[in-house]
Amino acid sequence: MNFMAKIKIKNLKDHLGEVVELDAWIYNLRSSGKISFWQLRDGSGFTQAIVSADDLSEEKFALSTKATMETSVSIKGKVNKHPKKEEYEISVEDFSFYQISEEYPIAKKEHGIDFLMDNRHLWLRSKRQWAIQKIRNTIINACYDFMRDNDFTKIDAPILTPNAGENTTDLFEVKYFDNKVYLSQTGQLYIEAAIFAHGRVFDFGPTFRAEKSKTRRHLTEFWMMDAEMAFTNLADNLEIQEKLLRSMVSAVLEKNKTELELLERDTKILENITKPFYKITHKEAVRILRENGSDITENEDLGGDDETILTKLYDNPIFITNYPAAIKAFYMKRNSEDSTRAECADLLAPEGYGEIIGGSQREENYDTLKKRIIEFGLKPEDYDWYLDLRKYGSVPHGGFGFGLERIVTWICGLQHIRESIPFARTIYRIKP
Amino acid sequence: MNFMAKIKIKNLKDHLGEVVELDAWIYNLRSSGKISFWQLRDGSGFTQAIVSADDLSEEKFALSTKATMETSVSIKGKVNKHPKKEEYEISVEDFSFYQISEEYPIAKKEHGIDFLMDNRHLWLRSKRQWAIQKIRNTIINACYDFMRDNDFTKIDAPILTPNAGENTTDLFEVKYFDNKVYLSQTGQLYIEAAIFAHGRVFDFGPTFRAEKSKTRRHLTEFWMMDAEMAFTNLADNLEIQEKLLRSMVSAVLEKNKTELELLERDTKILENITKPFYKITHKEAVRILRENGSDITENEDLGGDDETILTKLYDNPIFITNYPAAIKAFYMKRNSEDSTRAECADLLAPEGYGEIIGGSQREENYDTLKKRIIEFGLKPEDYDWYLDLRKYGSVPHGGFGFGLERIVTWICGLQHIRESIPFARTIYRIKP
Repeated sequence: MNFMAKIKIKNLKDHLGEVVELDAWIYNLRSSGKISFWQLRDGSGFTQAIVSADDLSEEKFALSTKATMETSVSIKGKVNKHPKKEEYEISVEDFSFYQISEEYPIAKKEHGIDFLMDNRHLWLRSKRQWAIQKIRNTIINACYDFMRDNDFTKIDAPILTPNAGENTTDLFEVKYFDNKVYLSQTGQLYIEAAIFAHGRVFDFGPTFRAEKSKTRRHLTEFWMMDAEMAFTNLADNLEIQEKLLRSMVSAVLEKNKTELELLERDTKILENITKPFYKITHKEAVRILRENGSDITENEDLGGDDETILTKLYDNPIFITNYPAAIKAFYMKRNSEDSTRAECADLLAPEGYGEIIGGSQREENYDTLKKRIIEFGLKPEDYDWYLDLRKYGSVPHGGFGFGLERIVTWICGLQHIRESIPFARTIYRIKP
Repeated sequence: MNFMAKIKIKNLKDHLGEVVELDAWIYNLRSSGKISFWQLRDGSGFTQAIVSADDLSEEKFALSTKATMETSVSIKGKVNKHPKKEEYEISVEDFSFYQISEEYPIAKKEHGIDFLMDNRHLWLRSKRQWAIQKIRNTIINACYDFMRDNDFTKIDAPILTPNAGENTTDLFEVKYFDNKVYLSQTGQLYIEAAIFAHGRVFDFGPTFRAEKSKTRRHLTEFWMMDAEMAFTNLADNLEIQEKLLRSMVSAVLEKNKTELELLERDTKILENITKPFYKITHKEAVRILRENGSDITENEDLGGDDETILTKLYDNPIFITNYPAAIKAFYMKRNSEDSTRAECADLLAPEGYGEIIGGSQREENYDTLKKRIIEFGLKPEDYDWYLDLRKYGSVPHGGFGFGLERIVTWICGLQHIRESIPFARTIYRIKP
């Protein structure tokens, strides 16, 4: 069997009028007497095959009526164009089944989310889930392109780590031969070590938080891209973040028109991405939130509801700067004008979505950093190697991390983060 | 401070004769009376700065003598070219220190490997380690480019999994709230589910094996790229693998000349990559090995020493096909002409390096696959969702997985895999 000589559905337009061969699945079908219509999918696109008794032997046509939803098939037929639309279809001249599918459990009727998540290995085939993963793929590729074009070297941080990266709660424990270790919450601390060798570095891998909160924004396993830069300040850092997010959204708008239509995503707000992002301080955010009914105070972090209220007021991402230092991580440098505030920014997606990036200037002074570690209830001896980075040629540096699933969820306009990743993990979900 | 206006060492050639500003570390230095030579590194490249008493105030020159190895510095100076070589250097007109480094523990004297691995966060700065990570970065980027150009969609497989992917030994156990789960040994089974939606898919992430064997080829945490293709056979599969590896090696040869020179890598064998790879059966490999002193038999897997002996006989990668089915994974399809053999191939790097890719046709028949699961001592109920893929539109399919660190180790010509990854994890190594 020569699979390589067959064509893909996305290339049908290059073969108008020709007889071609292709492999696909029948994702839907209907028939009326002497003619059947097979809706085909092959991963590259969607098309329709017309199976007519006039074009096939009696025996072959009889076989065609055995087709079921999700049956896999090899087809030979002529490529025709829809008279009015940019759509192509195939008049079948011959076919063979790879496998006639058993009755497909995810039929067209409505299913509950638990049933769909239990059948995630099949649900991924639906057009909507196909579109989400294609957009996720575009975002990943756009990120790699941007990082390469901007001189970032990929430095893969380890997943198995002896200590907490961010905080000592939310840690997953791993039995490591005769010891205990933890799953990484962030690669940031590790990749900071590599800026001294490479200047600009990033990682992009899975991270883990034993989140007990069951919200539409949380997973226990999610993909994070961390970037760190030597010789930088917060202004430069935010400029890089803005350009990176712009490049990812622009790539999706350019390459995934079909997918965005399938998801019925209103792209008007996404198109604002070329405009400068909004920038407000945490204090301003608190003032706006209180005007809109929140009881948040100036020393508190934004809760999930606050993020929803605030970001619904905006039509483009919003940087919130100068958070209270006490609610942020120990490694953040303090603002030079107000030492109770961190030299940091979170980037929130509009339309109610909320935080997608967190970043800051990092504390580069050895004594100050050691003091912070103690103040935050952590042990300096657990961070000996991280403290070393402030002994041997310390430099002003900073970085940021984005949550891939948060970005996919926003760009796709999803209600819940669980659809943004192929196989979601939450407190109650570890299968399939 | 305007960091963005400064230039990078790699761009010095574009500023010949100009006065520029740049930020860097002094990785080495020497001085003789009225003149000092600072060897600089900024992540983008290496250069030399000449600090002369003639060009600086007395006070500034006195300050310059405080410089130590790994001191971080901002420099202003004129760019000059070496009269004979393509090398650029800077005549310093002004400078300031970010931080005068404490005595750097990794000086020029020889250190033992344990000391270097304990100080991995600093060792990464050495030229040799810089070169390895730059090459790793090129390989990663070339892989993403190839997968995109060949219509593969990235599908991130989960790391936290309820069952074994490959075998039930070598599993790391994770406490997951009130349950136990395991760290993924391979993403393959999960991404197989996605071929039905996307045709060609891949993942690229960390995988985990609780390897007790302490060899130069094994890590407990390593990065794997798994690819799966619908509608394929082993011949097509091997063709894709050959093209992928060729594209990665070619990218390194093109983009990392400086790095390969630093590593003193003989590139002659790497340049053979444009020639067709060797292809022999497992039986032939056994015959050759026995002629060369091994006592391997026809039903055994190649051991580490066998891989070393065999691959030293070749000057380009070698596919070994038709392994005994019993020593391979349960999901491999059997060879149609000899059902005791798997329809599979491992790809071995030459020069004594050994296995870098493993791949096979996957068993697509439900009943056969279920039988194999039982034969291999696994429980069908643990693989219910994986078996489902053979019920609903099963198709001929296959795939492969490469170990990133194995490829980096070979291309860089390293003695041991531990240098190929930023922070290696082995049975005795979990820090830093």
